[in-house]
Amino acid sequence: MRPINHLRPFVVSLFLATVVPCATVATLERARAAEGGKQQPTPLDSDTVELRAAANEVFQAIPALVPTVKDNPVTREKVELGRMLWFEWRLSASGVISCNSCHSLAAGGSDNVETSIGHGWQKRPRNAPTVFNAVFNAAQFWDGRAEDLRSQARGPIQAAVEMASTPEYVIGVLSSIPEYRQRFATAFPGEPDAVTFENVTRALEDFEATLITPAARFDQFLEGNLTVLTIEEKRGLRLFMETGCAGCHNGINLGGQAYFPFGVVERPGSDVLPPEDKGRFAVTKTASDEYVFRAVPLRNVALTAPYFHSGKVWSLEQAVAIMGTAQLGKELTPQETGEIAAFLRTLTGEAPHIELPVLPPSAARTPHPQAVLRVPTSPGGAPEAPGLR
Amino acid sequence: MRPINHLRPFVVSLFLATVVPCATVATLERARAAEGGKQQPTPLDSDTVELRAAANEVFQAIPALVPTVKDNPVTREKVELGRMLWFEWRLSASGVISCNSCHSLAAGGSDNVETSIGHGWQKRPRNAPTVFNAVFNAAQFWDGRAEDLRSQARGPIQAAVEMASTPEYVIGVLSSIPEYRQRFATAFPGEPDAVTFENVTRALEDFEATLITPAARFDQFLEGNLTVLTIEEKRGLRLFMETGCAGCHNGINLGGQAYFPFGVVERPGSDVLPPEDKGRFAVTKTASDEYVFRAVPLRNVALTAPYFHSGKVWSLEQAVAIMGTAQLGKELTPQETGEIAAFLRTLTGEAPHIELPVLPPSAARTPHPQAVLRVPTSPGGAPEAPGLR
Repeated sequence: MRPINHLRPFVVSLFLATVVPCATVATLERARAAEGGKQQPTPLDSDTVELRAAANEVFQAIPALVPTVKDNPVTREKVELGRMLWFEWRLSASGVISCNSCHSLAAGGSDNVETSIGHGWQKRPRNAPTVFNAVFNAAQFWDGRAEDLRSQARGPIQAAVEMASTPEYVIGVLSSIPEYRQRFATAFPGEPDAVTFENVTRALEDFEATLITPAARFDQFLEGNLTVLTIEEKRGLRLFMETGCAGCHNGINLGGQAYFPFGVVERPGSDVLPPEDKGRFAVTKTASDEYVFRAVPLRNVALTAPYFHSGKVWSLEQAVAIMGTAQLGKELTPQETGEIAAFLRTLTGEAPHIELPVLPPSAARTPHPQAVLRVPTSPGGAPEAPGLR
Repeated sequence: MRPINHLRPFVVSLFLATVVPCATVATLERARAAEGGKQQPTPLDSDTVELRAAANEVFQAIPALVPTVKDNPVTREKVELGRMLWFEWRLSASGVISCNSCHSLAAGGSDNVETSIGHGWQKRPRNAPTVFNAVFNAAQFWDGRAEDLRSQARGPIQAAVEMASTPEYVIGVLSSIPEYRQRFATAFPGEPDAVTFENVTRALEDFEATLITPAARFDQFLEGNLTVLTIEEKRGLRLFMETGCAGCHNGINLGGQAYFPFGVVERPGSDVLPPEDKGRFAVTKTASDEYVFRAVPLRNVALTAPYFHSGKVWSLEQAVAIMGTAQLGKELTPQETGEIAAFLRTLTGEAPHIELPVLPPSAARTPHPQAVLRVPTSPGGAPEAPGLR
């Protein structure tokens, strides 16, 4: 098992990240001159230097290298296998739904519909979160009911409204196909029978750990490129910190680390916050967790409309305005929401380069797609038990 | 518009294709020795030389270079745009179905279910044909109702049981997104408004023309590698030609060139040949075209189970046996069907390397996904008018 040596040569970013914190303003001026004015020129004033310093207190840049994964070392073999499983329709009961169905790696790691469509054209109860940079979240799902990506992966495969499959079916499919048997044995050496559901989720977790999007313009700013943001974007960043957004949306993913009630100050209307979905309450059964959700990670938010767990809001500006009234009790002006949205659009990073795998054909004893494998236990599509979805 | 210069360096294949027809048996013996015995050794006898000569009378190898497309020159810009449109869910009414939903480029260019699942979980009436090498077919669809790939592309986008969209909706989506406007303008220079439904289908056609799978072991055999097939596979090839299969399944795609009744000698049971689907009759309204279908192209057939337009047969051996009785009036022995199936498995070529595109986000005026855009006109899912599907 060789640890993966990720390949993005962000020499410039790394150079800046290492060097710039100690650099003089004169150095930065020269760097800016070398940039050649590709961006709208912005004054390289002490405000910008101070803004970057303040931002670095609250946020961290996405690293150029794939992060380590707890208790599941990232190896090339597991990542390759995970990439195949990610696109593997045969994990689903119907044979037509894969991880990529709701978390499209061509479309910001999500599906850009209100709530995903699953087995039998059932609608999921909540909007699909992006898989990009999900490895940096403290926990997974809108209510944080999965502690890591491999726990998360157990859910959608088995959820009756998503892939509607079972571990037994998944293992039946994969263990029937010689290439998968060989790949599991290589990815999990020393295990006498490596084709297990646990290893399916481990391979998926390691593949997902590679789905990071470094080099967003905001990252370049954090790393010391002081001219990469426009005046409007810098105003938006300042507002984002000073108004209070960064109180919940901070850290490497600008969110994804902690839980907060949706409607700290004023609960949004039932179109945006459907009363039947009580959020983290379903996980903890604690009254104070009613309508509590994980603060959404805002990386690549410009790619992941529509917004909120209900997926009811398509405009980033409108989403910002709703957050202002609901969470902060502030009526942001159109100019302010525009500036914050402009800042949020600087969070779009470089998408991972994904080559489609070549999936091996089914064998004679591979189970065929099933119309029904798992019957929904909650017809309304409400979340099932923690850990399952 | 630069003509695409396809990149597969099939130097060995090309070398063999050029040189071997004139080579001596001694040269081939040396080539075989250099192969190092990776394949089961087979006698390099005059039978094999004769078999290859006979095969070259009936079949042609898939070329290493992307073919030309009539009235639609293949350019890098159109192929790139077509690759984006291929994965573009937003062409469908629901926003969750793309070309790749039924013609997965990770799975042999098809979807490996009986009949595809489309808008609203409706089942398509026929099994999805592979898109790989479809550019070499004389016409498209099971009944040949589309004369080329761009006519074909008009169908599934609009079919109520597939993507359920309309040209107006598609153009509404694409023209709202600045990157698409720019890419259409670049791909179709000189057109004042390049974002048209016709150009959508032209870009898709050019992308599909790149989806060829050269270098199958059978191609290597045709090109002169006389030791690449096993004894069983060569027996299967001989049977395939001598029993009569090659009467319909010939040419570059081993099919896809002409129409034949399903059941020339003996009509299969209604499980395999559902009586309500009368095939090409729906296109020509000619009584003699009842239950007439295009001879299936057999390239990559090992990857495209289940078989027949009904998708009812999962075993390649069983499909061969059914063809024997239905089309040739011959009860093939299990050994014979096994040998023919072994030959058919040598038709699996090298899959194209496809990198997922990075799709641009929707803009403020991009239409949102629709629950209903097009109502099925034939609830049973029977094919609609020619050219539409």
